[in-house]
Amino acid sequence: MEAKFQELKTRLMEVDDLSSAAGLLYWDQSTYMPPGGAAARARQTATLSRLAHEKFTALGIGKLLDALVPYEENLAYDSDEASLLRVTRREYERATKIPSEFMAEVTNHTSASYQVWTEARPANDFERVRPYLEKTLDYSREAANFFPGYEHIADPLIESSDYGMKATDVSRIFADLREELVPIARAITEQPPADDACLRKNFPEAQQFEFSMDVAQRFGYDLQRGRRDQTHHPFMTKFSLGDVRITTRSREDNLSDALFTTLHETGHALYEQGIRMELEGTPLAGGTSSGVHESQSRLWENIVGRSRGFWQCFYPKLQGIFPAQLSDVPLDEFYRAINKVERSLIRTDADEVTYNLHVMLRFDFELAMLEGNLEIRELPNAWRERFETDFGIVPRDDKDGVLQDVHWYFGLIGGSFQGYTLGNILGAQFFATALAAHPAIPSEIERGEFGTLHTWLKENLYQHGSKYTAPELIERATGTSLSIEPYIAYLRTKYGGLYDLGKAA
Amino acid sequence: MEAKFQELKTRLMEVDDLSSAAGLLYWDQSTYMPPGGAAARARQTATLSRLAHEKFTALGIGKLLDALVPYEENLAYDSDEASLLRVTRREYERATKIPSEFMAEVTNHTSASYQVWTEARPANDFERVRPYLEKTLDYSREAANFFPGYEHIADPLIESSDYGMKATDVSRIFADLREELVPIARAITEQPPADDACLRKNFPEAQQFEFSMDVAQRFGYDLQRGRRDQTHHPFMTKFSLGDVRITTRSREDNLSDALFTTLHETGHALYEQGIRMELEGTPLAGGTSSGVHESQSRLWENIVGRSRGFWQCFYPKLQGIFPAQLSDVPLDEFYRAINKVERSLIRTDADEVTYNLHVMLRFDFELAMLEGNLEIRELPNAWRERFETDFGIVPRDDKDGVLQDVHWYFGLIGGSFQGYTLGNILGAQFFATALAAHPAIPSEIERGEFGTLHTWLKENLYQHGSKYTAPELIERATGTSLSIEPYIAYLRTKYGGLYDLGKAA
Repeated sequence: MEAKFQELKTRLMEVDDLSSAAGLLYWDQSTYMPPGGAAARARQTATLSRLAHEKFTALGIGKLLDALVPYEENLAYDSDEASLLRVTRREYERATKIPSEFMAEVTNHTSASYQVWTEARPANDFERVRPYLEKTLDYSREAANFFPGYEHIADPLIESSDYGMKATDVSRIFADLREELVPIARAITEQPPADDACLRKNFPEAQQFEFSMDVAQRFGYDLQRGRRDQTHHPFMTKFSLGDVRITTRSREDNLSDALFTTLHETGHALYEQGIRMELEGTPLAGGTSSGVHESQSRLWENIVGRSRGFWQCFYPKLQGIFPAQLSDVPLDEFYRAINKVERSLIRTDADEVTYNLHVMLRFDFELAMLEGNLEIRELPNAWRERFETDFGIVPRDDKDGVLQDVHWYFGLIGGSFQGYTLGNILGAQFFATALAAHPAIPSEIERGEFGTLHTWLKENLYQHGSKYTAPELIERATGTSLSIEPYIAYLRTKYGGLYDLGKAA
Repeated sequence: MEAKFQELKTRLMEVDDLSSAAGLLYWDQSTYMPPGGAAARARQTATLSRLAHEKFTALGIGKLLDALVPYEENLAYDSDEASLLRVTRREYERATKIPSEFMAEVTNHTSASYQVWTEARPANDFERVRPYLEKTLDYSREAANFFPGYEHIADPLIESSDYGMKATDVSRIFADLREELVPIARAITEQPPADDACLRKNFPEAQQFEFSMDVAQRFGYDLQRGRRDQTHHPFMTKFSLGDVRITTRSREDNLSDALFTTLHETGHALYEQGIRMELEGTPLAGGTSSGVHESQSRLWENIVGRSRGFWQCFYPKLQGIFPAQLSDVPLDEFYRAINKVERSLIRTDADEVTYNLHVMLRFDFELAMLEGNLEIRELPNAWRERFETDFGIVPRDDKDGVLQDVHWYFGLIGGSFQGYTLGNILGAQFFATALAAHPAIPSEIERGEFGTLHTWLKENLYQHGSKYTAPELIERATGTSLSIEPYIAYLRTKYGGLYDLGKAA
């Protein structure tokens, strides 16, 4: 039995090697690859992804999983071994439903689509990517239809990133949240906006990066096992538990871009770097769901990184780096600026309050496209109309509208966005639990110390990797299921201190 | 038949995808990977190399090659199709003799060995890598012994990089060359050395790179299909014909390091970028041998890049970039400095005249180690003794002695070095042929124009990739077989202009 278990692990490690190499192909494509490499790179990524899929869905893996059923029955549910078998079985059953050839076709298509998008977006040319996106929608529905018996066609796609969630669950949570959020957002955006001119001076990029990476390291990001590079669309990627990288972007005329994308991706990286080394190379060595992953990026970026306590410690340092730009800007003005709430066009630039409205738009559109109630050609107009309804403004162009996010141009449509708002909700829920256990955390943050918080997150979330599903992990860490209350309470307290929330309070 | 041929190409392309991804794993390991990634990276590289080997040596490939024999018989010898079948068959027969598991073990071992070497070299700690090197020697002999019937145990290893050459051929060529070279080297090194102080001032790295890359692009290096990064040991690597990269290193206190390593690697890159796109993804899409490859790096680095004509055009530009350092240094002083001949410790820093003595030392040691006439533990001392005999100086330490080159620490022992000297010989032979066809080349070089030379090399060498063996290619391009005479004539003319060669002239 032990030999069979070892054989399974060896096979899984081979799959992991192929997936990690495919990850590096993508990282390189986004960071350093010359344009001439694109055609072959699409083929290479497709081949590696196909081989990883083939190796993972091989009959041999299924036979080993079957043979190991009696072995698993004698193991504790939360042992590494039982968890590995449980999670591998779940993923195997899912993966065997999708043919390798289909996967390869999709990977090939999305690589090509991504390459076109990188040119179409700056050119504001939706028509150029439209045929790619139409094909992507076809692929997305085809992918869902490999899982017959779903309640909603989006369910299989949502489950691939947020296992345990269905379209109806997400719609219900989003409706509850919307009910609380819209009055708050309205109350704030009807007031004069905060002045964030202090963030829009000229800030040389090298110093921006140095400061951001210094904060990232103080949070606990280990650069012996990570690094930062520059890409248009920031991301975190892992090639092993010893090599967890982030990418960020920067703008000389906007201090918050590099800073907060760095803290965001650092949150993702802390999660992956915190996974126990014993899980290396197995399906357990990764975050358990898109929502839980995002809870960590949003917790470190927003709940910590945009808190007044954090800046009490770090603002004098930042002023020291940019004296000409910031020495005459008081802490409170800076704090209001980085927490400015406004009707904005770009999701990734959006504030904590309106961010979720961006996500809900995309989530609803994904459902509608998959249902066949929204055609790709209608998308730019639908975007503008919904945007006007939700935000009271209309995007000037598709570049800052339907072309803004990489997701649909580099992956399937469906299941791509709900994780961001689930993450906002969960980030607040986890933080509230950590605070209840360690009331000194806020005063530590004021001193630039993050050890207690980081340790609590490692012990309760990170170390487990994917051993537990998101619902299991939330229950274990917080003693209850997902709840929007801590998040609403957090927003009311923080933004009540910055704005008059009126009846919304 | 055509369908079978297409099936073969599809399978070969899958092998190429895996090899290219393995290449990227290595490039990343050398350029950007954080130290924590090393352990998993060794495993990942081993897995991809093993899979590439498995896919290439699969029975299916052999069956296709057999089935395609009648098809091949009706094709012209130099057609792409016949060449693909011929070269694939040769490599298949070679590769099927080496078991996949052995390959994986070796890759795993050499990755680990490389990692240790990167730390042992700066620490001057040969003992730390000694056990790795001993294991490497065992693997090297084991590898050779998969090819029983060799004349010399080094033959199968030499043939893997310089197909068509045997240890006795190389030894004979080297003996002939040595007879001519030693008196020239002696005549020069007995004279007072050239003063190269002008190269050893402070030269900021950014400007060094800008200048070198400007020259590289004028040579014809296409940065839409390439890029440059920094590594300790410079190399050229290709992920597709549209993505051919070089790496270089630099020293602020030595102008020639970045400059000439860039021109050297550019020569390699020009070869790969010049291969016809129709050969993409097949075993034909690469240089045909280590010697021919090196002929291009040495031709562009030395015959062009260290020529007086070249600097007539480029020295004023270099003076413009570094006026404080070079404005009072006349062209002739600079020209003598970059062509300084001396008894030096480091192969990659060595001048054109003594370089080959470095190579011959390593080649002879490889033969002796493989024969069992030189133990690894004796290597540091043997190195010092031979060095004293050949160069009249003794390395201060192992760092600049036996630890200096990456080759034995990241690959097998045997066949690693002869290509450098074969390249010197061939570079001169090809250049002489190009000049005979286009006598205007030297005056073009004086104007900073390289189009005629580059085009001749593309047409006669580069475009063919590996369609022809090195001996075939030399015959086609020059009308004769490998000859040391153009190289000796080149050295005599050039260095006769710089030094009194006395009786050696």
